[in-house]
Amino acid sequence: MKRRTYVLAIMVICAVVGAYAWYTFASNDKPYRIVDGVIRFEEPKRVEGQTSMLGFAAEPIETVRIGIIGLGMRGWGPLKRMAFIEGAEIVAICDLHQDRIDRSQKRLEEFGSPRADEYVGEDAWKELCKREDIDLVYIVTPWEAHTPMAVYAMEQGKHVAIEVPAATTVAECWQLVDTSERTRRHCMMLENCVYDHFELTTLNMAQHGLFGEIIHAEGGYIHSLDPWWDKYESNWRLKFNQANKGDVYATHGLGPICFALNIHRGDRMTHLVSMDTNSWVGKELAKKSLGTEEFANGDHTSTLIRTANGKTIQLSHNVYTPQPYSRRYQLTGTKGFANKYPVRGLYLEGDAIADSGIAQSHENLDSHKFLPKELHDAVVEKYRHPVQKELMEYAKKVGGHGGMDFIMDYRLIYCLRNGLPLDQDVYDAAEWSCIGELSRASIENKFMAVEVPDFTRGEWKKLDGQKFSFAE
Amino acid sequence: MKRRTYVLAIMVICAVVGAYAWYTFASNDKPYRIVDGVIRFEEPKRVEGQTSMLGFAAEPIETVRIGIIGLGMRGWGPLKRMAFIEGAEIVAICDLHQDRIDRSQKRLEEFGSPRADEYVGEDAWKELCKREDIDLVYIVTPWEAHTPMAVYAMEQGKHVAIEVPAATTVAECWQLVDTSERTRRHCMMLENCVYDHFELTTLNMAQHGLFGEIIHAEGGYIHSLDPWWDKYESNWRLKFNQANKGDVYATHGLGPICFALNIHRGDRMTHLVSMDTNSWVGKELAKKSLGTEEFANGDHTSTLIRTANGKTIQLSHNVYTPQPYSRRYQLTGTKGFANKYPVRGLYLEGDAIADSGIAQSHENLDSHKFLPKELHDAVVEKYRHPVQKELMEYAKKVGGHGGMDFIMDYRLIYCLRNGLPLDQDVYDAAEWSCIGELSRASIENKFMAVEVPDFTRGEWKKLDGQKFSFAE
Repeated sequence: MKRRTYVLAIMVICAVVGAYAWYTFASNDKPYRIVDGVIRFEEPKRVEGQTSMLGFAAEPIETVRIGIIGLGMRGWGPLKRMAFIEGAEIVAICDLHQDRIDRSQKRLEEFGSPRADEYVGEDAWKELCKREDIDLVYIVTPWEAHTPMAVYAMEQGKHVAIEVPAATTVAECWQLVDTSERTRRHCMMLENCVYDHFELTTLNMAQHGLFGEIIHAEGGYIHSLDPWWDKYESNWRLKFNQANKGDVYATHGLGPICFALNIHRGDRMTHLVSMDTNSWVGKELAKKSLGTEEFANGDHTSTLIRTANGKTIQLSHNVYTPQPYSRRYQLTGTKGFANKYPVRGLYLEGDAIADSGIAQSHENLDSHKFLPKELHDAVVEKYRHPVQKELMEYAKKVGGHGGMDFIMDYRLIYCLRNGLPLDQDVYDAAEWSCIGELSRASIENKFMAVEVPDFTRGEWKKLDGQKFSFAE
Repeated sequence: MKRRTYVLAIMVICAVVGAYAWYTFASNDKPYRIVDGVIRFEEPKRVEGQTSMLGFAAEPIETVRIGIIGLGMRGWGPLKRMAFIEGAEIVAICDLHQDRIDRSQKRLEEFGSPRADEYVGEDAWKELCKREDIDLVYIVTPWEAHTPMAVYAMEQGKHVAIEVPAATTVAECWQLVDTSERTRRHCMMLENCVYDHFELTTLNMAQHGLFGEIIHAEGGYIHSLDPWWDKYESNWRLKFNQANKGDVYATHGLGPICFALNIHRGDRMTHLVSMDTNSWVGKELAKKSLGTEEFANGDHTSTLIRTANGKTIQLSHNVYTPQPYSRRYQLTGTKGFANKYPVRGLYLEGDAIADSGIAQSHENLDSHKFLPKELHDAVVEKYRHPVQKELMEYAKKVGGHGGMDFIMDYRLIYCLRNGLPLDQDVYDAAEWSCIGELSRASIENKFMAVEVPDFTRGEWKKLDGQKFSFAE
């Protein structure tokens, strides 16, 4: 056999091996690689000298001067709420449209707040961010603007609060983390559902060990947006869903669960798999409103997540089909159970109830049913979260209702004024927001498992449990 | 360069390629291979001449002569129920223990049935199967005995009814399918939950199109077995769970869903992923009862399944932690929604309600809440399944309560007597039972997707929808 034949054989074999390796490891323009049948997103190294924001507290701010960007559906709320919060002052407001600005000024006036400076138009938000007399930029714009605006604002030395989700890609999550770490500015996502009453009470119960070890938790966002789709500026939400598969709105379901499971406060999410249905209702919406028959987002998307400590999380997303609203909040523990939708229910073992002094006798407890109403109410009363108690007092004194949005804004301003760590840090924002792209990657790769990035870069055991800070 | 060098180079490259291929495709003693990041179980070819059991009906049997194997927890029920079913006759009973036989004879007597012939001991069931005067072998033994007994009974020319799950491995599922196809004997799994009232009514509603396209369905088995573990003969159930990861008891949750989704009657399950928690409660049980610290089954196991028509299924398994009993039955449709646990609820669009003539006006329907009680009750009343109606009549005439176990036995005997296809065929048994091993494979391979075998071997579109047969 001629030498040429051997060379040719080696070349062919090398070409085959090379092509296979290329196909396996590099055949995509995606921000991830597939390693041993698992999807791994790029994790940028921390720049030297940059340090973690875990437990970070800024200097106290006597009066928190706020600039709000976006005065649409969700931006309308804080205009009122801030009027009832001591030490909060809206000094600037920004929107694309003058009529929203005008309406907002009237609202400020209605609740006794001074007129705010106005920023109108496409790039006006940058001017707002540059002002020297603003401490906090409150971002309530379409999802894809969240991270660019937050990054810019932090770079101008401002703390930021961002509507959910804080980011739409894993890369954006890292941008938020790195910018916050570099600039030493707070970056809090405005995840209001962690402040809802049942969630706060059950979090407190969890922290008192009433559920034993919480081994599994569920959450979701099941909410037909049928009446709301066309209320979003230029239909941005439908357009985003039209273009993106996955659980693109995971934070309401995930936030309260992550608090209960101490995510990046002793545990961390390690793997995720997602699966979605085809699009039926979404396709119809797109045909009607966007003039296309293509719709990427499945009508119902389900996600499973595993943690380093061997717990699991189940998430659901469905903003299309008609059904009762549900965030599916559920905690499964080795000694107890909590369920919020469609009805609230608790189950606790007799020991836990007796130990807590809630009831003397618990002989008639049926371990296959929820606690009877009287016992349920007694438990809820006894385990109100300190935040809930404080807010009840505060509402009596200052007014303002005690809904979850109010508690959220109150806590944000309270912590900033007292120089305390915020309830939600930039790692929460990144972890809860990254689900969108991770779930999309899983679905697009035939339900392949995805490694969840560790945004703390190895420091997820540094904090011991989830905590709300209070001034001494 | 010498020829030897070239040969050596080619050999080295071939060895590397070969080793990689071997590693990828053949490096396990498992009944599956991993192909392109997806687990694929072996699918045996159908033997020539053997044909499908889809729609199969046997010759009518005037009096169905029954032999029951296993008289423990679940075998106790049919001893009573069959006494209330026309044309059913228990002619033989079998158990490991004489005292259970004696107790069972008393029970037969109590309900006016003749004494049955007795088979006692380890291999006595084979003698029972061999009898010429038995039409149906009713198998109510520990899980791992189900398939061997069913296969043997079919080979002796008997129809078989098998408690859930019918099989514990994918290979056993194929054994059931192949034996049923070869022997032309019915092989029905005794999945009682498809006969529960809310499930039957909502199935009927689904078949009338009230939910629109059902795009997602949930089911599960959430039931703390704490009070029951030691009631299973030689602790077999705890031992099985001790040795096996995965959703080992999926059929109660999956059965009713598969009927509503027309699985192998126009659609089929194609992919599955599973994720479980660590074991906490299970480990404690094993320590206490089995003297080991090892426990394979996670306390909570979650599974996602996708179908060829783009629907999804979500399953949960947790027989450990204390919480209210739930089979999590839920149907999500493009026009309506049904939920069974912890409270029953329906949502239907106004059109569907008006079209059905249930209510004239539906102007006050809130698409974010369940139907108000009055409307709910009217819907349930109107859409009772024909099987439910028939059983209500029958119960009035003959007695026997209309619970799901009774309906199941009634339907089994009714169809055999009338020479009709059974409600559940051998493909149901295989599809619903295979989840155990498939979910285990997924979990053991870091939540990798698994292809769900097509037990109909390509004929899943042959039947048009799920049907209960009735005599003319």
